[in-house]
Amino acid sequence: MDEVKIIEIKKSVYADNDAAAGVLRQELKARGVYLLNLMSSPGSGKTTTLIRTINLIKDKIRVAVMEADIDSDVDAVKIKQATGIESIQLHTGGMCHLDAGMTRQGLENLAPGGADLVILENVGNLVCPAEFDTGAVCNAMILSVPEGDDKPLKYPLMFSVCDLVLVNKTDVLPYFDFDLDRCREHVRMRNPKARVIPICAKTGEGVDAFAAWLLEQVAAWKTN
Amino acid sequence: MDEVKIIEIKKSVYADNDAAAGVLRQELKARGVYLLNLMSSPGSGKTTTLIRTINLIKDKIRVAVMEADIDSDVDAVKIKQATGIESIQLHTGGMCHLDAGMTRQGLENLAPGGADLVILENVGNLVCPAEFDTGAVCNAMILSVPEGDDKPLKYPLMFSVCDLVLVNKTDVLPYFDFDLDRCREHVRMRNPKARVIPICAKTGEGVDAFAAWLLEQVAAWKTN
Repeated sequence: MDEVKIIEIKKSVYADNDAAAGVLRQELKARGVYLLNLMSSPGSGKTTTLIRTINLIKDKIRVAVMEADIDSDVDAVKIKQATGIESIQLHTGGMCHLDAGMTRQGLENLAPGGADLVILENVGNLVCPAEFDTGAVCNAMILSVPEGDDKPLKYPLMFSVCDLVLVNKTDVLPYFDFDLDRCREHVRMRNPKARVIPICAKTGEGVDAFAAWLLEQVAAWKTN
Repeated sequence: MDEVKIIEIKKSVYADNDAAAGVLRQELKARGVYLLNLMSSPGSGKTTTLIRTINLIKDKIRVAVMEADIDSDVDAVKIKQATGIESIQLHTGGMCHLDAGMTRQGLENLAPGGADLVILENVGNLVCPAEFDTGAVCNAMILSVPEGDDKPLKYPLMFSVCDLVLVNKTDVLPYFDFDLDRCREHVRMRNPKARVIPICAKTGEGVDAFAAWLLEQVAAWKTN
């Protein structure tokens, strides 16, 4: 039960990552697979958020998760234990991000038969992952309350490339100088069309809104 | 009062960063300047910690700060306003880390006459900054309680290269599943000689221990 597949991914062979990402996205479209690239700082709550969310949607659509980490397989094991869905670990061998070629290696290691939604939990890093198109249909990120509402000012590219920002750990809002309205304003400066959803992965508050958003996205990707 | 010097740093011209870092460290030794490279995730409290600490030591030694960020100058301005010491902003132009050549460019822009201690606040990132020797005498990092005590498992290199780990935001320990003993154990796995100091930059608790450590380090660097 505690065993998960661990893939040691190699540096991408593609010279042009944008082209490789475009090809991968077309293939995913043809197969009806929605790939979400989830990014954040270390410790913002990606894995806990995924567990809550997957348990809300796993009876409606088929979900698989690819956990990227420099080392360890704690996240993939946690996801598998807590949700029962397919979860594999991608080891980046020290690399600070995933590109389209590396993402493809992960997808090829998922069980055949497929998933409607594959979630890629990228390396915890607000800088480099934003620079590489993974081939995902959508980029999302988690900003946790303890990190501060000024992060869109300091990490502009990350917030520019994400169409969804989950503001996590809202249960500790009383203990931190974090203003949700100011945060929304900062996010809008970087990406006017980005949606902001406040959640608390620990208590589950707001996670239903993220789950509903995901179901809509997957349905639209399959039909449009 | 709100104006700080902003340096747009260029990609390093040095092919061999380790050699360049070694040369820089020797020069700093000759000049009696202690350079501390402070790293962490985004939002772990680097700037707040520095303000508290600098106000405890600025009457004893001459301190200057170099704030590295991809964009914005909010941190350098904050430091200058709250401490009155020299504080400059290094813009990395999207780069996720600093190397020795970039650090040298920053040092050359500090006011002549010198400082006993220069603190480099590196880009908020637990991955890439750990891979590049900046020429600093010592690497230190801040791990904040909300990030979780498992971070040394996931970001092994960062914890291997740091001889000091400040565990910040201890005031919110009751609200998070963070165990200080388990954290110390994880840090020791990566670097048996690393010192761990729990602090709360917001309230000031524990910051005196960090300040005392810094004063000792600077004195030893100047005399040994």
